[in-house]
Amino acid sequence: MSTGQRIGMLGTGLIADFYTNTLLAGRSRDSVTSVYSRSTERGKAFSERWGIAKYTTSLEEIVNDEDVDVVVVALPNDLHLEAITLAAEAGKPTLCTKPLARSGEEAKAILDVTRKHGVFTGYLEDLVYTPKTLKAMESVRAGAIGDVLWVRSRETHPGPHSAWFWDEGKAGGGAIVDLGCHCIEIIRTFVGKKVRPTDVFCWKDTLVHPITAEDNAVALVRFENGAVGQFEVSWTFRGGMDLRDEVAGTEGTIWLNHFLRTGFEMFSSGSSGGYVAEKAEADSGWLFPVGDEVAELGYVDMFADMFDSLERGAEPEETFFDGYVVNAIMDACFASSESGAWAPVNVEWPHPPAPRIQSAPEMHDGHAVIKREVLPDGRHKLIMKRSDTGEIVDMIVSG
Amino acid sequence: MSTGQRIGMLGTGLIADFYTNTLLAGRSRDSVTSVYSRSTERGKAFSERWGIAKYTTSLEEIVNDEDVDVVVVALPNDLHLEAITLAAEAGKPTLCTKPLARSGEEAKAILDVTRKHGVFTGYLEDLVYTPKTLKAMESVRAGAIGDVLWVRSRETHPGPHSAWFWDEGKAGGGAIVDLGCHCIEIIRTFVGKKVRPTDVFCWKDTLVHPITAEDNAVALVRFENGAVGQFEVSWTFRGGMDLRDEVAGTEGTIWLNHFLRTGFEMFSSGSSGGYVAEKAEADSGWLFPVGDEVAELGYVDMFADMFDSLERGAEPEETFFDGYVVNAIMDACFASSESGAWAPVNVEWPHPPAPRIQSAPEMHDGHAVIKREVLPDGRHKLIMKRSDTGEIVDMIVSG
Amino acid sequence: MSTGQRIGMLGTGLIADFYTNTLLAGRSRDSVTSVYSRSTERGKAFSERWGIAKYTTSLEEIVNDEDVDVVVVALPNDLHLEAITLAAEAGKPTLCTKPLARSGEEAKAILDVTRKHGVFTGYLEDLVYTPKTLKAMESVRAGAIGDVLWVRSRETHPGPHSAWFWDEGKAGGGAIVDLGCHCIEIIRTFVGKKVRPTDVFCWKDTLVHPITAEDNAVALVRFENGAVGQFEVSWTFRGGMDLRDEVAGTEGTIWLNHFLRTGFEMFSSGSSGGYVAEKAEADSGWLFPVGDEVAELGYVDMFADMFDSLERGAEPEETFFDGYVVNAIMDACFASSESGAWAPVNVEWPHPPAPRIQSAPEMHDGHAVIKREVLPDGRHKLIMKRSDTGEIVDMIVSG
Amino acid sequence: MSTGQRIGMLGTGLIADFYTNTLLAGRSRDSVTSVYSRSTERGKAFSERWGIAKYTTSLEEIVNDEDVDVVVVALPNDLHLEAITLAAEAGKPTLCTKPLARSGEEAKAILDVTRKHGVFTGYLEDLVYTPKTLKAMESVRAGAIGDVLWVRSRETHPGPHSAWFWDEGKAGGGAIVDLGCHCIEIIRTFVGKKVRPTDVFCWKDTLVHPITAEDNAVALVRFENGAVGQFEVSWTFRGGMDLRDEVAGTEGTIWLNHFLRTGFEMFSSGSSGGYVAEKAEADSGWLFPVGDEVAELGYVDMFADMFDSLERGAEPEETFFDGYVVNAIMDACFASSESGAWAPVNVEWPHPPAPRIQSAPEMHDGHAVIKREVLPDGRHKLIMKRSDTGEIVDMIVSG
Repeated sequence: MSTGQRIGMLGTGLIADFYTNTLLAGRSRDSVTSVYSRSTERGKAFSERWGIAKYTTSLEEIVNDEDVDVVVVALPNDLHLEAITLAAEAGKPTLCTKPLARSGEEAKAILDVTRKHGVFTGYLEDLVYTPKTLKAMESVRAGAIGDVLWVRSRETHPGPHSAWFWDEGKAGGGAIVDLGCHCIEIIRTFVGKKVRPTDVFCWKDTLVHPITAEDNAVALVRFENGAVGQFEVSWTFRGGMDLRDEVAGTEGTIWLNHFLRTGFEMFSSGSSGGYVAEKAEADSGWLFPVGDEVAELGYVDMFADMFDSLERGAEPEETFFDGYVVNAIMDACFASSESGAWAPVNVEWPHPPAPRIQSAPEMHDGHAVIKREVLPDGRHKLIMKRSDTGEIVDMIVSG
Repeated sequence: MSTGQRIGMLGTGLIADFYTNTLLAGRSRDSVTSVYSRSTERGKAFSERWGIAKYTTSLEEIVNDEDVDVVVVALPNDLHLEAITLAAEAGKPTLCTKPLARSGEEAKAILDVTRKHGVFTGYLEDLVYTPKTLKAMESVRAGAIGDVLWVRSRETHPGPHSAWFWDEGKAGGGAIVDLGCHCIEIIRTFVGKKVRPTDVFCWKDTLVHPITAEDNAVALVRFENGAVGQFEVSWTFRGGMDLRDEVAGTEGTIWLNHFLRTGFEMFSSGSSGGYVAEKAEADSGWLFPVGDEVAELGYVDMFADMFDSLERGAEPEETFFDGYVVNAIMDACFASSESGAWAPVNVEWPHPPAPRIQSAPEMHDGHAVIKREVLPDGRHKLIMKRSDTGEIVDMIVSG
Repeated sequence: MSTGQRIGMLGTGLIADFYTNTLLAGRSRDSVTSVYSRSTERGKAFSERWGIAKYTTSLEEIVNDEDVDVVVVALPNDLHLEAITLAAEAGKPTLCTKPLARSGEEAKAILDVTRKHGVFTGYLEDLVYTPKTLKAMESVRAGAIGDVLWVRSRETHPGPHSAWFWDEGKAGGGAIVDLGCHCIEIIRTFVGKKVRPTDVFCWKDTLVHPITAEDNAVALVRFENGAVGQFEVSWTFRGGMDLRDEVAGTEGTIWLNHFLRTGFEMFSSGSSGGYVAEKAEADSGWLFPVGDEVAELGYVDMFADMFDSLERGAEPEETFFDGYVVNAIMDACFASSESGAWAPVNVEWPHPPAPRIQSAPEMHDGHAVIKREVLPDGRHKLIMKRSDTGEIVDMIVSG
Repeated sequence: MSTGQRIGMLGTGLIADFYTNTLLAGRSRDSVTSVYSRSTERGKAFSERWGIAKYTTSLEEIVNDEDVDVVVVALPNDLHLEAITLAAEAGKPTLCTKPLARSGEEAKAILDVTRKHGVFTGYLEDLVYTPKTLKAMESVRAGAIGDVLWVRSRETHPGPHSAWFWDEGKAGGGAIVDLGCHCIEIIRTFVGKKVRPTDVFCWKDTLVHPITAEDNAVALVRFENGAVGQFEVSWTFRGGMDLRDEVAGTEGTIWLNHFLRTGFEMFSSGSSGGYVAEKAEADSGWLFPVGDEVAELGYVDMFADMFDSLERGAEPEETFFDGYVVNAIMDACFASSESGAWAPVNVEWPHPPAPRIQSAPEMHDGHAVIKREVLPDGRHKLIMKRSDTGEIVDMIVSG
């Protein structure tokens, strides 16, 4: 048993709190030994809140600290490149929050510098690590739903809690950047991460809020094997946080609901308050909490994979390469919504081409069977394409 | 109390059965007095199955029959124009199954001939008449969800039961024509039928079946007021028939599930069989029947609206004009999937322009409020856009 | 086609409104021709509200009215015996709301007088006529769940709308009388109406409201064939009206949800109001309306069965005999909660004894198989009771 | 950070596998250092399966092993007393699987011997530690549902996997002992563990299987404060494992679904197999897996509480006293089903009496308000009990 990892936390915002909370509870043998903030005050407050020995306003200091084994980047997007470059130069394993960068180009620069220094990288995309997603992926790999044809991922809620998310300049976009990055990686996970995304169509609009960034978007991502991903993101959804994934395969279907309908239903007259769940809109009436929010959102299993992979010298499920692909797909989303047409995904792709999904149709007397139905009397009805005439015909056969 | 309508049924296929079943059960005072089929044999069998006095192979005969008050067209799409023209010339109120025609152009010809003869028309789009949709529309009209921003309608199943649906030549398309026409009208109903659909983006593909028509499609429909509709159709879905609508408004959300999850759950070891539901894939394991299928799918309320409107000299909710708009939108779907870009909806539009959806943001000290959150201590956090600098900032105020 | 039934409505309360609403909409050829009320004012108001030609304060007058074909009793329980006696003497078909009477004895008197005069009777227990229940019963009859072992029926809500329900003297009880009568008949319907209920155990208490009647109760009803029914009723439930039935059979399971989770989900910020559903507790937050409330609660199919049966000279599903059995079971509930032990159901039972449910166990090599499980490798594990030693043992066999 | 606990595992059956799996994954710093089995062969196999250094057939040896910090008893019920006595004499903290014993008397002997030796005890009732239950209890403690009135807990499935469960002699009962023990402790957790259970009513029967033990049971548990618990257990349920809890309070409602409906839905044509979930009945059709089964069933949080409590010198949520109370309540279940009447719970109770739940009714003009309803026009309708006459009357007042 390893004695655990000592973490240098970069950032003191909400996501740094979430990460620290998970790190201390999760494997129960890791520790946060230092925290970096641009503000001494926030660094001090964070270190006291979580019982962390050191805090600093120097990136150089924290990434080179001997008591720091692993650097976790939980900073605003525009600071990722600088922080990761320093950590890579210090030779430290580095984990970075989502999205990796503000663009595919910037993500590529981040990827390159970590590769140059040969450091371990982990992309902190929690939602591909939810217990339901992990279990669903087991079923997909076991063939339970056949070939994956179509993946839809939705994340919608009434909008983020901090001002900078709403500022297109700082965030590099709106709901696509905030929420779409999750959906894209969920889609890639189910389609297969070695299957190249080729092009994207995206609609976006600002329907409600007095901002310039999009508060609603829908996009389609086409993959080289014919599979299609679809994501729906919104900052104007009413009713809490809707977090759902659906996978359609040739042999089956998977529906995952991570938040509003997970088997926990509560009605309260509202005589008392209390935290219900992230992005909940109300604390009375019918409420839909989740059991263990940090576990259900994937944080626990994500850090477990990161550290277990690091300790055994393997790559985790999510690396900076994945973050780079997500940024490239988001670039294509913005290009498409600009042009009103499909936009190509510009990404350096290391994997060989994946063949087109195809199922050899069942044949009957030399004709391709389109559909086979069981009739009430036990006989089967075949709808077939005649190989000679191309006509589509019915035929009843014994079962 | 009227003594009811006497119907001439054109067609003897599955949908004619569904209609006849509903007509006889529904208001319980209407009757089918004659049936037309191209085949004497099928006409005779149908008339015997339903206790109908007459059957004929002559369109002219049935539309001019004195015992026929209303003509119901349940024929394949390529026969609609001819049948409706004859019925209009006979001055008979005419109801037609969906889709109205094979193209917007053909639909326009149908619309024109009925207008020329001034006959009552009803477009038999059952799914906007489901009890849930009717009730949801009451809530929408009462303002319960504010302005409608986004409507998603899905119809997916493992594919139709008859050969001709799979034949692109006869059907004029695949899943879009079979299922998308429902979704489009559901979207229009929630967005507002006087709001002009302007353009469409559509992806379609043939992923599984050995056919030329699409077996999967996703489309976005943009409306002049900024609202967007989204439909998802598939003939490759596994698990039954998924029939769901979702409406997102500025003040609320509506989710309707018409089929697989309606509060009726059954597990059967499969020791006995029996009809479960339309397009069910199995008769053992967990099954999800609906209570009264014909009512839940809207047939009962659809015919009630048609005949009640006819009897009081009013237009029903769904007329041939609506069928024409649906065809025009489907034309745009095919154009867009060809071009890979948004395609305009070509439709003669009688209504005045609808203004862009917009909500005047809440103002605080002259700044636009982007979001207001209640903090645990009862104070409110405002995220605002400063009117002077354009900066987005936080401010805590008393509640 | 019959020209429909002309109804004399006795009563002007909420249930009379519900009935009249259904009667006018349902088959669309029936009519209410006269209304009786103890108060001229209420009778006049009701007749105007529904467009009814006559109103009267004389029971004799309405039951003998030549324009009244069928008498519907929607009066408080203590007036049923008198009204039904007069209607029976007038030779009129009579339908009565639930419960039939205040006790088994009074119900028996009602049953006897209608039998003496040979009139058609219908017991207006709507909840066995919900579309889901009718469909579920089809499956049960087709054998889809094998022998019915256990039926649970729940009706709970925050309490009735009218003062008299809360008055034990007038109502003859509390939640058991108001809600339990529904549950009991649902249980009988699934277990089989010819299977004799033998004894009852009941807990009841007044937990919240300042009343003497019970506001909560749970009861078990044992049947002669070994099946057991369980009902749960409450006037203190928070969250709306919970209306659920569950049936466990030897080969399957049925779960019906009639109200709070039927595939219709709505979130509203509450900026506008409007009727949501019977017994709904709120008009903002997450709301769960039903589509067509009158249909979903069974009123439509109930009156259709009543009139169709009457017209073809048959008995409806629910007669006064059923109302009598329900009263007898409720009597046993009160007796049991008094004694703290099982109480017998005192009822004159016309049907032959039903044998004990039993399934001959599968035999393997002369031993009874308790359970057969499929192992991952395809072999089967048998848990068996050795016929020689009585020991319970495992054995692995090929599949 | 502690270096973790070294566990001596007593038993090698399914539950020992579950525990070991959880212990190794959970806090990730605990270890199993030795395993006891009555059979050398099974002990060796288990030690190899889990990489455990030692195995033994001597209880004395394992409980006195210097490398064992904590003893976990995962043996059949009839071996608990002996094993725990030895562990207590060795002064080792001892955790025991459920149920604690075969009777209240035996449980009391176990409790006494551990108290005499002053050892830490933990009762391994996992289902009160599910993430949903923990979160729900937070809400209950925060007052979100007011006073708890009624708790229903259900566990039903098609029957256990091992022969000994079906053997009344070895197991000490059937479904009550196997499943009811879970339900009882869930009920106590929500009602309040310091509230004394006073008496029990229980129905049980053997409806399907060729065994002498009960395969179905329903029981009511009354508490001194008026609250009532209800449990439903079955070994004949078809459709998987139904694990649901419901809590009704004066101000709210909680519904928990731990297994069949947790937001994970999968349809598979069955072209491939694979493990779905504990007690699943099928591997094709609609399936309802859970994400992380061990976490969702409470094992992870249970062991975390046990070890964290041990390490900080506190009592865990579940001690042997709780196991003793559960056994006493199960004794009362058997007594009641024998007598057909309420049976008292015989338990030595250390806590002071809890007062009867009661809410002072809202008063209006000196009369107790039974119900307050908001009318569509904003006025309120009060149903009140007149303090002078005792009559129950309506009154409309401004809101």
